[in-house]
Amino acid sequence: MLNSVSITPEAPRRVRLSPDDRRRQLLGIGLRMLVERPIQDVSVDEVAAEAGISRTLLFHYFPTKTDFHDAVVEAAVRRVLRNTAADQDATGEEALTQFLRRYLEQVERRREFYLALVFGNGTFALGGERVETLREQLSGRVQAMLGLRDAARPVVHAWTAYVEDRALLWSSVPARQRTTIEAEIDHCRRALQALLST
Amino acid sequence: MLNSVSITPEAPRRVRLSPDDRRRQLLGIGLRMLVERPIQDVSVDEVAAEAGISRTLLFHYFPTKTDFHDAVVEAAVRRVLRNTAADQDATGEEALTQFLRRYLEQVERRREFYLALVFGNGTFALGGERVETLREQLSGRVQAMLGLRDAARPVVHAWTAYVEDRALLWSSVPARQRTTIEAEIDHCRRALQALLST
Repeated sequence: MLNSVSITPEAPRRVRLSPDDRRRQLLGIGLRMLVERPIQDVSVDEVAAEAGISRTLLFHYFPTKTDFHDAVVEAAVRRVLRNTAADQDATGEEALTQFLRRYLEQVERRREFYLALVFGNGTFALGGERVETLREQLSGRVQAMLGLRDAARPVVHAWTAYVEDRALLWSSVPARQRTTIEAEIDHCRRALQALLST
Repeated sequence: MLNSVSITPEAPRRVRLSPDDRRRQLLGIGLRMLVERPIQDVSVDEVAAEAGISRTLLFHYFPTKTDFHDAVVEAAVRRVLRNTAADQDATGEEALTQFLRRYLEQVERRREFYLALVFGNGTFALGGERVETLREQLSGRVQAMLGLRDAARPVVHAWTAYVEDRALLWSSVPARQRTTIEAEIDHCRRALQALLST
């Protein structure tokens, strides 16, 4: 028997969210799953179930599974950028140091997640482009904070790859057996200076 | 009607190969497909069909689809290493220059393939580990040719990531608009020297 006014038993599970909040909620669930598994294993059915909505409603926000996966990976890149940003009022070497410290801490805290983000997002086109986006953004930021010429960009860009490799190696070693984060920051700063004068 | 002696109509398609040659043939077909698509889209059925053998026979060489994919990716890494190796009798700066030239040429010739290899192999564990293997091998080789101490290894390792990023950027620009391969080799050599003195 249908009765559109009565409260159905399922109603309490289904919280009313604004479209923006719903989008954010779905991406948040996707991100949490992405920390533990490759993007192609993030199931829209599972995400919808966890949000307490139907698969159909999820597809209202993200028309296809690929759209959802793309949005989750983009949200992950934005999160890394947000987590590694220097303070708004910091400039120059101070900003660079803040960025390096937050970047190293981010990779250390979420090493598997970072590896997933950089080295495997299901298809290679997606992988390559996202990495490009991330390195573009990071190097643009460093260029801006240090007031470097555009000609320095390829060096700064490749330096972000250098720092990434250092961070992955550094974070793979147990804390007692590796150099301090200060020594690592210092090395990366001096490496950039050395490369810029190459 | 079965007759194990008579030549069946299918026989001409089915060439008898030694186990080693068959393995090599299957990996070769897999590698050719890997140039055009991500590893998870390399279908064992298609590979078996192209080799003119049954799926069952393919699984005799590679027990599971994952085993086959792993072997193809390993073969791809070996191919990159072989294609970028310096001459046996070359040492020091000469060997380094040969390696850099061959590496840049390799990435330029097979940019999409290289991107696929590094940034997307289906699952993130595979991706991260393979990249690690490739960089380990490349940096071990550079350490050996230049006779560097083990303490220099993290720098050389991260420098391979630096060179990779440069190569991907360099090869993405049309030949007329970018620096020459000589200038790129020279920059990478000087970058290593600068980083080693950091």
